[in-house]
Amino acid sequence: MSQPVIGTPWKKLPDIVPDDELEGIDRYWRCANYLSVGQIYLRSNPLMRSDFVDEKTGETRDFGREDVKHRLVGHWGTTPGINFLMGHVNRLIADHGQNAIFLMGPGHGGPAGTAQSLLDGTYRSCYPEITDDEAGLQRFFRRFSYPGGIPSHFAPETPGSIHEGGELGYTLSHAYGAVMDNPSLLCVAAIGDGEAETGPLATGWQSNKLVNPATDGIVLPILHLNGYKIANPTILARISDEELDAFFRGMGYAPHVFVAGFDDEDHLSIHRRFADLIEQVFAEICDIKEEAAARIATGKTVSRPTYPMIIFRTPKGWTCPKRIDGQKTEDSWRAHQVPLTSAKDTHEHFRVLRGWLRSYAPDELFESDGAIRAEVTSFMPKGELRIGANPNANGGVIRRDLRLPDARDYEVPVAEKGHGWGMIEAARVFGVFTRDVLKRNMDDFRIFGPDETASNRLQAAYEVTRKQWDAGFYADEDNDMLLAASGKVVEQLSEHQCEGFLEGYVLTGRHGIWSSYESFVHVVDSMINQHCKWLEATVREIDWRKPISGLNILLTSHVWRQDHNGFSHQDPGFVDLLLNKANETHVVNAYYPADANMALAVAERVYASTNCVNAIFCGKQPAPTFQSLDEARAELAEGVAAWDWASSAQTPAEADVVVACCGDVSTLEALAATDLLRGTGVSVRFVNVVDLLKIQNAHENDRAVSDMRFTELFGDGTVPVLFAFHAYAGTIRRLIWNRPGHDAFHVHGYEEKGSTTTPFDMLRLNRMDRWALAAHALRLVDEKRFSTQIASWEAFREEAFRFAVDEGYDHPAFTDWVWPDAAGSAAELSAAQLTVGDNE
Amino acid sequence: MSQPVIGTPWKKLPDIVPDDELEGIDRYWRCANYLSVGQIYLRSNPLMRSDFVDEKTGETRDFGREDVKHRLVGHWGTTPGINFLMGHVNRLIADHGQNAIFLMGPGHGGPAGTAQSLLDGTYRSCYPEITDDEAGLQRFFRRFSYPGGIPSHFAPETPGSIHEGGELGYTLSHAYGAVMDNPSLLCVAAIGDGEAETGPLATGWQSNKLVNPATDGIVLPILHLNGYKIANPTILARISDEELDAFFRGMGYAPHVFVAGFDDEDHLSIHRRFADLIEQVFAEICDIKEEAAARIATGKTVSRPTYPMIIFRTPKGWTCPKRIDGQKTEDSWRAHQVPLTSAKDTHEHFRVLRGWLRSYAPDELFESDGAIRAEVTSFMPKGELRIGANPNANGGVIRRDLRLPDARDYEVPVAEKGHGWGMIEAARVFGVFTRDVLKRNMDDFRIFGPDETASNRLQAAYEVTRKQWDAGFYADEDNDMLLAASGKVVEQLSEHQCEGFLEGYVLTGRHGIWSSYESFVHVVDSMINQHCKWLEATVREIDWRKPISGLNILLTSHVWRQDHNGFSHQDPGFVDLLLNKANETHVVNAYYPADANMALAVAERVYASTNCVNAIFCGKQPAPTFQSLDEARAELAEGVAAWDWASSAQTPAEADVVVACCGDVSTLEALAATDLLRGTGVSVRFVNVVDLLKIQNAHENDRAVSDMRFTELFGDGTVPVLFAFHAYAGTIRRLIWNRPGHDAFHVHGYEEKGSTTTPFDMLRLNRMDRWALAAHALRLVDEKRFSTQIASWEAFREEAFRFAVDEGYDHPAFTDWVWPDAAGSAAELSAAQLTVGDNE
Repeated sequence: MSQPVIGTPWKKLPDIVPDDELEGIDRYWRCANYLSVGQIYLRSNPLMRSDFVDEKTGETRDFGREDVKHRLVGHWGTTPGINFLMGHVNRLIADHGQNAIFLMGPGHGGPAGTAQSLLDGTYRSCYPEITDDEAGLQRFFRRFSYPGGIPSHFAPETPGSIHEGGELGYTLSHAYGAVMDNPSLLCVAAIGDGEAETGPLATGWQSNKLVNPATDGIVLPILHLNGYKIANPTILARISDEELDAFFRGMGYAPHVFVAGFDDEDHLSIHRRFADLIEQVFAEICDIKEEAAARIATGKTVSRPTYPMIIFRTPKGWTCPKRIDGQKTEDSWRAHQVPLTSAKDTHEHFRVLRGWLRSYAPDELFESDGAIRAEVTSFMPKGELRIGANPNANGGVIRRDLRLPDARDYEVPVAEKGHGWGMIEAARVFGVFTRDVLKRNMDDFRIFGPDETASNRLQAAYEVTRKQWDAGFYADEDNDMLLAASGKVVEQLSEHQCEGFLEGYVLTGRHGIWSSYESFVHVVDSMINQHCKWLEATVREIDWRKPISGLNILLTSHVWRQDHNGFSHQDPGFVDLLLNKANETHVVNAYYPADANMALAVAERVYASTNCVNAIFCGKQPAPTFQSLDEARAELAEGVAAWDWASSAQTPAEADVVVACCGDVSTLEALAATDLLRGTGVSVRFVNVVDLLKIQNAHENDRAVSDMRFTELFGDGTVPVLFAFHAYAGTIRRLIWNRPGHDAFHVHGYEEKGSTTTPFDMLRLNRMDRWALAAHALRLVDEKRFSTQIASWEAFREEAFRFAVDEGYDHPAFTDWVWPDAAGSAAELSAAQLTVGDNE
Repeated sequence: MSQPVIGTPWKKLPDIVPDDELEGIDRYWRCANYLSVGQIYLRSNPLMRSDFVDEKTGETRDFGREDVKHRLVGHWGTTPGINFLMGHVNRLIADHGQNAIFLMGPGHGGPAGTAQSLLDGTYRSCYPEITDDEAGLQRFFRRFSYPGGIPSHFAPETPGSIHEGGELGYTLSHAYGAVMDNPSLLCVAAIGDGEAETGPLATGWQSNKLVNPATDGIVLPILHLNGYKIANPTILARISDEELDAFFRGMGYAPHVFVAGFDDEDHLSIHRRFADLIEQVFAEICDIKEEAAARIATGKTVSRPTYPMIIFRTPKGWTCPKRIDGQKTEDSWRAHQVPLTSAKDTHEHFRVLRGWLRSYAPDELFESDGAIRAEVTSFMPKGELRIGANPNANGGVIRRDLRLPDARDYEVPVAEKGHGWGMIEAARVFGVFTRDVLKRNMDDFRIFGPDETASNRLQAAYEVTRKQWDAGFYADEDNDMLLAASGKVVEQLSEHQCEGFLEGYVLTGRHGIWSSYESFVHVVDSMINQHCKWLEATVREIDWRKPISGLNILLTSHVWRQDHNGFSHQDPGFVDLLLNKANETHVVNAYYPADANMALAVAERVYASTNCVNAIFCGKQPAPTFQSLDEARAELAEGVAAWDWASSAQTPAEADVVVACCGDVSTLEALAATDLLRGTGVSVRFVNVVDLLKIQNAHENDRAVSDMRFTELFGDGTVPVLFAFHAYAGTIRRLIWNRPGHDAFHVHGYEEKGSTTTPFDMLRLNRMDRWALAAHALRLVDEKRFSTQIASWEAFREEAFRFAVDEGYDHPAFTDWVWPDAAGSAAELSAAQLTVGDNE
């Protein structure tokens, strides 16, 4: 397997956890709690000295309100519970030598994450300025949620994190993605009961039907049932115990309920109970792994086990003051953020804060110089087993480049057959190439899909693998022929899950792709935003995070060919979301391959990319191929190219009009329009864009073509540019606002009109069809001179529509058109599709 | 109650369903199946006549391949199951006189929806060209998924639909929204087992904790467990019966399993079993309603009942050919779309199609002239009880305008105190106004929130209502003080649920608002797209759908003031999604009130609006108020205004620079920059935009200001325009691309930089702070002349940042600034906040 073997996975402990380790956990818990309160409240005097030397006055003074931050921001509520769990998971890892990572669903437990990595030593490795003394501790406290400091979540800045949790809902998707093909990994996934109310999390539980206990790792979900969200109780905290139990059993889990913190139980007793429980749960997991391995060894089918999970019911804000200002605080939504808002301003609140901090007995936790006492951390794991140091949480250190096939082997033979030859589905060619990427990289490449892998034309993968499915088979059923208990394709009808799985997979150092109907990728807009933000922060500020693989999304079944579906399935606007992240970090790419060979060139590019999101907008219907692979690669290198063979003018200045395009259907229509224009005497310069951001204003994008080059391609504004764009016209306008000659651009795009109708009718409705484009071009050149021709084309559009209404399919002039260069016979055209599928 | 009383709700049937009604249901089922197959396959000869007169040749011929559509598109798979359910629900409605609507989660059951409304007569009322004869039937078949025809889903074009289902996941959110404050309504919600894998649907089940059986209606979920999605089995179809039962019991439902179609059971026997089951389920529902009413009558608390639901397990594609081309088709994913793809091209497939159609015995269903036989529909409900005619499914016919309070009563007294007076939270003032909207309209207004109603400053509502919650109370618990079994605020930590509930509520004729952290509204991007598409289709083409209330979203906790949170919570890009729907239908609005009085003016506007989505981007932190309500109303009327009092030049031509702005924080910074510029001798024209789409290119938006007016406001391009925009700069560039003088615009926006930091630091990071704006303005005017001043402001920015790093809060020059006109004393400034909350 490609994932590193760390520790000694899945070994049960022979004895019960000794008391001294429980005492270590308790010290960890108190220390992490102290560090958490300190991060939220203190700017100086981190050890609460009575003889603190004030940094401004140089005078000695007692711990006082001067030491409290002016602005108190952060979140306490979930933090002590997370600290408790972190302590116990550290103990589990150390005792068992278990390879494990920790996903923190309640992102608002940020102080718990930084405290953890401070205690396991990784924080100081990444940030040497945080020295192991009083000064370092003060810096650690002060930088939290501070100007020039660090954010308040379990953010990329924190070692050990692969899941910020700033937006809620994706913990289980990420966790299950992380354990796929990672059989030695335990992923502890702490889930807030607030987060559990989101949709994505609610379906995330079902992921256990899509993993294999033998070939994948194990997710241990811990529902942190602390009762309240920002301002309300949570649903799962208030339903009956019977309902809660049934809920998890219904989803295939064996729930173990743990309750603590609501009475005066001694903390060591609580630790004893939890340590025993997590040992029991871990033993159940070891049994599952053992049974799965045994079944494989004896040739039996692996069948889905009942996975354990833990319901961890504790008070919100556990260990903070029970009441503040007479109002219930511990075990209340009032503990969510900063319970003592006036700790700086009033002695009364300060006194409470001081007492709260002292309740953790800092003298037992820190040396007098501020160093953390050895007995606080001695029970913790060492080396790569540390939560902050596990390479799975810094996937770039694991990642190796994919072994890619040679795209040449898949090329559609346009060089021999002529530009515009054949009828082939670009997405299917992309899929055949992807099959062979998978074949060469079976350990660290996966394909995800919302029930659309075949519909989106990635089904060649089934020649080398199966769809992983552990929800039950019908043995005598040919419906199940592509399913298997272990396979590299994963399908659930949830874009959230596809995106989340792939994020978890690439964040742990692997590669992959998921596909979506173009319109419904908007379901995960917010997830993409969050992944981009993770990457932007990484690229800008976090050297120690090594580059992870690009997150690839094939967007097919696109707006122009939603044949079985209607208006609801027509929305090409995802690119506009990406554009908001198009900045100096280069974390987004939008590719619009015009044909199959370009799709191959793009595939080579995206499967080698790092630290980015790649959106590939690519049709799945048979269409001509226009360029050879060499031409495609050359175009992709610059992102945009003039197509001499399609142009009657060799420069924009010589042309009457520049016809530009981006997108497969829009390129086809632009070419057909150019063909129409041939007979009119109008001379055309033809330009195609594949890498959309390369035409972005060069001042905003240092990888875009220069203004000089832009002018060479599109002209200087003296010649009109007719631009046929796949998506909404505004996108182009926004990109080129400051380019030379931008006022000469006339953009056609999707005009938000459609229904379940024919391909031509979709184009007609949005004035993207060849006749509309050609007529517009003539109008731009000389409306008066070409008025007869314009009228005739517009009349033909109407005729073609009437034909479609009468006959129910499109006019032959639309469906039979080929570019004049295409040399193939009709038989060759239809044979082209078969040719490619046969490559290896 | 405002919702109309239809029929005689919640009456049990004294006797069992008589056999003749079951025969009626079976005829309905066969007829709807015939009509569905006909829609997918037939273009002519809808009665399969052997003596059909060909429309082209005029000759008589047999039913043949000529009658099959050239392009076969559509979805059969889920349709027969929906037809079955529709038949039984029709019977239930008719027998009980029950007010009911039907939500079709599997949107791909489109042919079932049109067949239903054809059979209940409503389709012909809306589309008189569909006559009750052979010609009408042919038109009905041919228009389905046809050029110039109708879409393939249960789309707005179909009477009785309020839920297209084109995108999956929202059936339960919409259903529960529809029944809120609608106590006589039964909402039958058919949910596909594919849809059940989505996140939003998975959490939608929990909605039963948020409704009240006495004051709300009842949702009856029917899980259509037909086993397969596009290409895979479904998870819920493959887990064990025990797990499936536990799953629903865990979520508070009593599941009733119904299995049919897998053996040779006689259809009447199947109908008998289902009719008995749905009677039993309906009786359980009547008991729940009765018990809830009794508890209210006796002053007892309503407690959450266990609601029934039905698991309807049938073969996918039920009643289609069992095998086609040797492959299993009925009860397979192969039945998903068009099972007989070659019915036009091969006699073999045509023969199968003919046999399939004949299996429904059309002679028993249609008169010889093509009219539907009376005995097919005689059992169905009449009048408004018809599924296609229920006014809840055409909410505009129920909707009445809100009784609005006078915004004057909430005005911040800027007219007396001076522009820029006070420190007040605009969102809170909006919330106080909203409280009084609610107070005047308790029957048909609701507030939804993802646990953020208070955080987003709408908490004044709790003075007149409570949060509706039916998941259990702690009687002795002050944490629960704002909760009640019935209330007008609904909170679940799921943006999907908030959006979906409000959609269901407004689609059934009511009004409301939900609020979101600005960044996380992206969670529902796709839902907003779908609602916009519903409205666009309605506005363009569907006269008989009456206008429904605007869907209002308060977007606060915005990018510039995410004090407790970091980079993950900073994304103002939702407006870019809306812009893709900014077309002649006017279904989107983006409002950026600069202050509290403008927020009031916007509130008046949005609460009176129809057929649109209103996004209100509005801060929740204390800030000055700049304009009187009269000024705000005047600005809102045009959407943009020059602020003379803030300008030193009275026209753009007289100014050295136009300072323009949109958004509250950006307006504050632009004003402060203008104040800085005062001392330099630079003359400024100050312009504020509140209704963003009013500056959109006038050729794209007939409600935008004219180019002439645009030039009056912003100049003709000879004077530079510095534009401070709340969101990403590209948005402005895209909007004004064709406006006169657009090249003179220099836009500052969010540059995708941030962390958990101070307000000034967020502005500094993105060059939106007053000093950066003022320095840029000077540079635009005369960089050389003002170089000293520019350097000094830039130095001050750095100083202010160093101050923040040292002290942990912002420099007083930033926090203490007030516009020179503001006359109030410091005491008045802070008192202003209290003043408003006291209105009535």
